[in-house]
Amino acid sequence: MNYFSSNFKLGILGGGQLGKMILNDTRKFDIYTCVLDNSEEAPCKLASNEFYLGDLMDFDAVYNFGKQVDVLTFEIENVNVDALEALEKEGVKVYPSSKTLRTIQNKATQKIFYTDNNLPTAPFSRFAYTSKIKDAINHGKLTLPFVWKSAQFGYDGTGVKIVKSVSDLEHLPNVECIAENLVPFKNELAVIVVRTPSGDTKTYPVVEMEFHPEANQVEYVICPARIDDVVAKKAQNIALKASKAFNHVGLLAVEMFQTENDDILINEVAPRPHNSGHQTIEASYTSQFEQHLRAILDLPLGRTDSKVGGVMVNLVGAEGYTGNVIYKNIDKIMNMDGVTPHIYGKKQTRPFRKMGHVTIVNEDLNEARKVAEAVKKAIKVISE
Amino acid sequence: MNYFSSNFKLGILGGGQLGKMILNDTRKFDIYTCVLDNSEEAPCKLASNEFYLGDLMDFDAVYNFGKQVDVLTFEIENVNVDALEALEKEGVKVYPSSKTLRTIQNKATQKIFYTDNNLPTAPFSRFAYTSKIKDAINHGKLTLPFVWKSAQFGYDGTGVKIVKSVSDLEHLPNVECIAENLVPFKNELAVIVVRTPSGDTKTYPVVEMEFHPEANQVEYVICPARIDDVVAKKAQNIALKASKAFNHVGLLAVEMFQTENDDILINEVAPRPHNSGHQTIEASYTSQFEQHLRAILDLPLGRTDSKVGGVMVNLVGAEGYTGNVIYKNIDKIMNMDGVTPHIYGKKQTRPFRKMGHVTIVNEDLNEARKVAEAVKKAIKVISE
Repeated sequence: MNYFSSNFKLGILGGGQLGKMILNDTRKFDIYTCVLDNSEEAPCKLASNEFYLGDLMDFDAVYNFGKQVDVLTFEIENVNVDALEALEKEGVKVYPSSKTLRTIQNKATQKIFYTDNNLPTAPFSRFAYTSKIKDAINHGKLTLPFVWKSAQFGYDGTGVKIVKSVSDLEHLPNVECIAENLVPFKNELAVIVVRTPSGDTKTYPVVEMEFHPEANQVEYVICPARIDDVVAKKAQNIALKASKAFNHVGLLAVEMFQTENDDILINEVAPRPHNSGHQTIEASYTSQFEQHLRAILDLPLGRTDSKVGGVMVNLVGAEGYTGNVIYKNIDKIMNMDGVTPHIYGKKQTRPFRKMGHVTIVNEDLNEARKVAEAVKKAIKVISE
Repeated sequence: MNYFSSNFKLGILGGGQLGKMILNDTRKFDIYTCVLDNSEEAPCKLASNEFYLGDLMDFDAVYNFGKQVDVLTFEIENVNVDALEALEKEGVKVYPSSKTLRTIQNKATQKIFYTDNNLPTAPFSRFAYTSKIKDAINHGKLTLPFVWKSAQFGYDGTGVKIVKSVSDLEHLPNVECIAENLVPFKNELAVIVVRTPSGDTKTYPVVEMEFHPEANQVEYVICPARIDDVVAKKAQNIALKASKAFNHVGLLAVEMFQTENDDILINEVAPRPHNSGHQTIEASYTSQFEQHLRAILDLPLGRTDSKVGGVMVNLVGAEGYTGNVIYKNIDKIMNMDGVTPHIYGKKQTRPFRKMGHVTIVNEDLNEARKVAEAVKKAIKVISE
């Protein structure tokens, strides 16, 4: 198959910021790309060769879209997986596979997958309904505190709650869920693994999610993580093992905890380009987006090491502002060393909405980290 | 003016590969962009917010297009400069200016500009018609050999001829031209200077155009140039002086000769992103395309130094092939270290047509140079 010709069509399910950054590379390679998204205002409407409006959770919408492309991928997990399976049966190359996505879409199934494959993860119990949790506590089968996670559609922290007392359960939806041991950790780490259909595999360096000491919110993604080499190697090996266990094709972002005694536990995985890899655009020899394309098109993988140190700061809508977005002080941050803003092109801001990100690169990672702090202090995503 | 809002419109005259690479960065910053081009198949048709078909040399087409934008730039010199001047008078910010472009569009005027501003360039004579050259030779005012250059529309080597005997003049068009001394040089160098409306100025490192020893064709652009620091500094200073003399806004690519005794002579300049700066996408802290945007939008300039060594190889159509393009062995070159192909998206190849370029980056420039040679040997731009 000659990808670099107009006879080839790549399909992407989802037209958000991740898709938009993939399109930079389909444009660079001149790969013909079709995008399906729920919204007329999707960032991918521009720069895709064909853009289709449709419900990503609807079988027919996904199936009909997928029928016309040669390789199909997704930039969001919430897509109709039955349609993906039907397309695979009819010969469309779906990367990552429907099987992987089905396993990952349900957090309980995902956790069981880790256990079945001897991949370290925090101990957990599965419940058909949240209401069953109280019985388990009453019968001494579950002890407080624990982390409650909805099995379905938990995305970006929604569907997760730390349960400290039985009353914390009251406002939770009565759905399939897991109760996970609360494991104290000293670092949240992530490793992106890339794998081709032929099984060629590479890992990016371990990155570190640095949290705000009080707000308990990720403030910076730091590449490489400022951790011991032995721990880094352990994290990369676990990520590699996860990718192989899934028989994965494309990117797999593996989020992990480094516990107090340097154990590594898998938190969750994402089978797509990931927030923890945005700094690869400026910092790495090959960006995660180009790498995903190389993998799903079965092209040779690029180098995953870094040219320079990289720190990433998310641009999220400030609290108290809803409406037409303004990036206050963007000129100020562009005056700082090694700063590149990425604006996703969403017209409306609202509190905590992901509106963009800023990458800071420097030959000295500590210097990049300092500049990142200045960036974080200066920039504000507000409304008109 | 808030560029990062949909009330702002950037206009680009020309929708070729340079425009396409600018659009990567307008997309990154979410800057609303309109493009005017002569061809329905222009690479910029995708990824621009508004695309207009029109003759770039036609006053009305350029004027009407320019009236609707806030800042107007160009990615090709062959545009109607009277329209640019009219737009400037009516308040449209045209960067680079019509005055600069008018000076540059005519090679005789350009050469006189260097002389007037004490910028070093090879000695030359100006002729209203090629036919007048013979008289000058006959009267002993001009000696053979020399370089004949058409004053108008000499682009990429067309309109240039080395005249060794009077008979060489016979097939040249009878147009305004210059006869330039043939100066033996040991290196062809280039420096990209960037300057904002406020006069902030930065230069990129000096790059070297390495020629094929027999074919006398540029094979590799090498960044940084493998030359003495004193010579590099001299070249950068001359380029800076040229940018200031033009009172330039945006990128100015200054092509220069390093003579046998290390004098630096300006060959010609291009007021736009330039082939000699393509490696900045992968090798530099800020790509030339992003830098051009920063400059014309009067944003702070980015770092111009390199993360790693970079070598660029042009992908031109192979001789003997015309038709639907195929990039033979592109998978092979993607298997080499630090290789990124850029495919411009032109459907038809023909001999020597610029179809793309390949950047090779490495922490060790010599290693990048070696890989570049392997790339050059492997890749072939042919037709179906």
